[in-house]
Amino acid sequence: MTHYPHVDYPNFNFEVTHTSADGARLGRLTTPHGTISTPNYIFCGTKAAIKGLSPQQMHEANTDIILSNAYHLMIQPGADLIQKMGGLHKFTGWNGPMLTDSGGFQVFSMGNASCADEIKGTNRPKREDLLKITEEGAEFRSYLDGRKLMLNPEISMDIQRKLGADLIVQMDECTPYQVSKEYTAKSMDMSMRWGDRSLSAFERMHDGSQGLYGVVQGGIYDDLRQQSAQYVACRPFFGTAIGGCLGGDDDEMYGILETCRPFNHPTRPIHFLGIGRIKDVFKSVRCGIDTFDCVMPTRIARHGHALMRGGPSEKINLLNAKYKDDPEPLDPSLDIPCSRDFSKAYIHHLFKAGELLAYQIVTQHNVAMINRLMTEVRAAIKNGTLTELEREWLPG
Amino acid sequence: MTHYPHVDYPNFNFEVTHTSADGARLGRLTTPHGTISTPNYIFCGTKAAIKGLSPQQMHEANTDIILSNAYHLMIQPGADLIQKMGGLHKFTGWNGPMLTDSGGFQVFSMGNASCADEIKGTNRPKREDLLKITEEGAEFRSYLDGRKLMLNPEISMDIQRKLGADLIVQMDECTPYQVSKEYTAKSMDMSMRWGDRSLSAFERMHDGSQGLYGVVQGGIYDDLRQQSAQYVACRPFFGTAIGGCLGGDDDEMYGILETCRPFNHPTRPIHFLGIGRIKDVFKSVRCGIDTFDCVMPTRIARHGHALMRGGPSEKINLLNAKYKDDPEPLDPSLDIPCSRDFSKAYIHHLFKAGELLAYQIVTQHNVAMINRLMTEVRAAIKNGTLTELEREWLPG
Repeated sequence: MTHYPHVDYPNFNFEVTHTSADGARLGRLTTPHGTISTPNYIFCGTKAAIKGLSPQQMHEANTDIILSNAYHLMIQPGADLIQKMGGLHKFTGWNGPMLTDSGGFQVFSMGNASCADEIKGTNRPKREDLLKITEEGAEFRSYLDGRKLMLNPEISMDIQRKLGADLIVQMDECTPYQVSKEYTAKSMDMSMRWGDRSLSAFERMHDGSQGLYGVVQGGIYDDLRQQSAQYVACRPFFGTAIGGCLGGDDDEMYGILETCRPFNHPTRPIHFLGIGRIKDVFKSVRCGIDTFDCVMPTRIARHGHALMRGGPSEKINLLNAKYKDDPEPLDPSLDIPCSRDFSKAYIHHLFKAGELLAYQIVTQHNVAMINRLMTEVRAAIKNGTLTELEREWLPG
Repeated sequence: MTHYPHVDYPNFNFEVTHTSADGARLGRLTTPHGTISTPNYIFCGTKAAIKGLSPQQMHEANTDIILSNAYHLMIQPGADLIQKMGGLHKFTGWNGPMLTDSGGFQVFSMGNASCADEIKGTNRPKREDLLKITEEGAEFRSYLDGRKLMLNPEISMDIQRKLGADLIVQMDECTPYQVSKEYTAKSMDMSMRWGDRSLSAFERMHDGSQGLYGVVQGGIYDDLRQQSAQYVACRPFFGTAIGGCLGGDDDEMYGILETCRPFNHPTRPIHFLGIGRIKDVFKSVRCGIDTFDCVMPTRIARHGHALMRGGPSEKINLLNAKYKDDPEPLDPSLDIPCSRDFSKAYIHHLFKAGELLAYQIVTQHNVAMINRLMTEVRAAIKNGTLTELEREWLPG
């Protein structure tokens, strides 16, 4: 195995301030761009922008932390350009904590249908022409102009250094669902080697401004997950991320979190990659998860779905004809104009008419709703009332 | 000619507070939803929304007044629905003064290519299958579902009453360019009869909440314009709107304004329908225009064009490759986040990546820029420095 040096993170800190009987914990995660309370939710600004919202509007919705995707940014506008413009914080105008992923997941998804399909275990055939994975890294074609690109641990570290987010992630291979245990084990071993290469590259460029997460892989296999969690815990990563295939149903997913849990490093922040429905948040914080990220809140908004607290479902579909003349706002208790000042009838009209304002209103509402969820979850963990809170949010 | 009664506008007022030597004037226009200083600019919220901006963002950009289009709203979501939801102010959340047009212009444009083509004198063949104009009114098909719809003066008044804007407009036929004088004269005569029918219908429903504008037609023919202006001045309209074909070039357009001017009612507000480039504002205020409306500021924003003060042109194209690494914001002196906090490089990237945030940023910038223009124009009229100001804005 590659040599890996000790790494200090002088400008970073993670402190667990409370652990409750049901396994959930409270923490404070410090980065050079501020400290956030955990559990918390990282919103996806895929291409260096939250789709439809400005940093100002994200703040208005009480957002603490966002992310961008190295894969998209390496293609457009390029990491060099963002570095030249002063890094992601300066480029986007977001001054709070920020994360980038390694790019591996999106590259990998090109060969295996969509990210969501992957996580949910839908199995589609690989498109070998789009993607070639070797020990060296992943070779793929740009969706913009077809040119061949390479992503490997060193390149990913270089890109993420140029982007300049606070929290960055090692490159790994995100194993598909329903592949054999042998494939999963081999892939996990490679991800470990990629982890060491990521650490070495990280150490060479480390100036204290970034904290690196290792990724736990191992698919749905308990012994592999344990090995992978142990690997990440033994290496000088700042944080632990749980990634890869998480099974075909919710029970399997939460089971994997429980499997990893005793083997995760106990004092590092644990991030759950790409998962974040409301019910996932309630289940996962009990498995010790500190941060989430998911495109769900912003993506479903653009399809007219607004998140609800305490409804028969997590969300309502504003395109439904029953909202045509509904004078009620989305949720006035959120006390933010998007949720308070517009009737469902108006938002229904905006979607029907294809008005851009629709996306802005519902996206900001969903972000505000998730941030309220996280605030209430943190309070409930402190007060030992998480079960009651879950029942309030999800009575259905 | 139809009988027309006297009409009082107890909740409305227009006061000319200053007239300068070059013909420009300052005024105060009072509506039930507030008083605005004139000259002023009415931004187009075509389908009951400014494309990409919330009422809050319009206020942030110092907007005083907006409009919506009766034609679009009668088709979707329907005037009855908006009335049921409490009218346009309540429906949209815009609490300031608001105007609706009659719907005639858009109906008419269906038969004659686009509005812009019309005003600019581009002549395309009529599409008779889409539109039939008779003395009774205009029969056309909905672009949503193909059903046959009728718009006539009485229906337009009924729709505009239900929509509930402060300022509303009589139905007229907007004469195409390059039609004969005979056609223009006959069309103008019909618009006058439609004006009387509009007034009669208005009087029957009048409860003091709305002020009706008459429309001056007559194409490019001086004698017809004079007749039409005299007609509008003699009838009990609250305001005067200058509409219809305005010629093939700027000189012809401003010539028409000068032609109408002595015949317009001297103490009523004068609105210039659908015209509003920066240079138009400077020229037209000298012809006594008090209010403008134009989709230009918001429409060009969605194509990446940002309005500029004092550049070689009124606008820059942010899609231009030269902005790829331009660290400068659009105009920090506007002191609004959209114009101050984002580099041109970032906005360039957002457009290239198809990010929704691009539309929001540039639309709000353009609105703020036009509102600054109007503020500075009003100050310059007061100080007698309009020529100097014009040179500052348009040195090219």
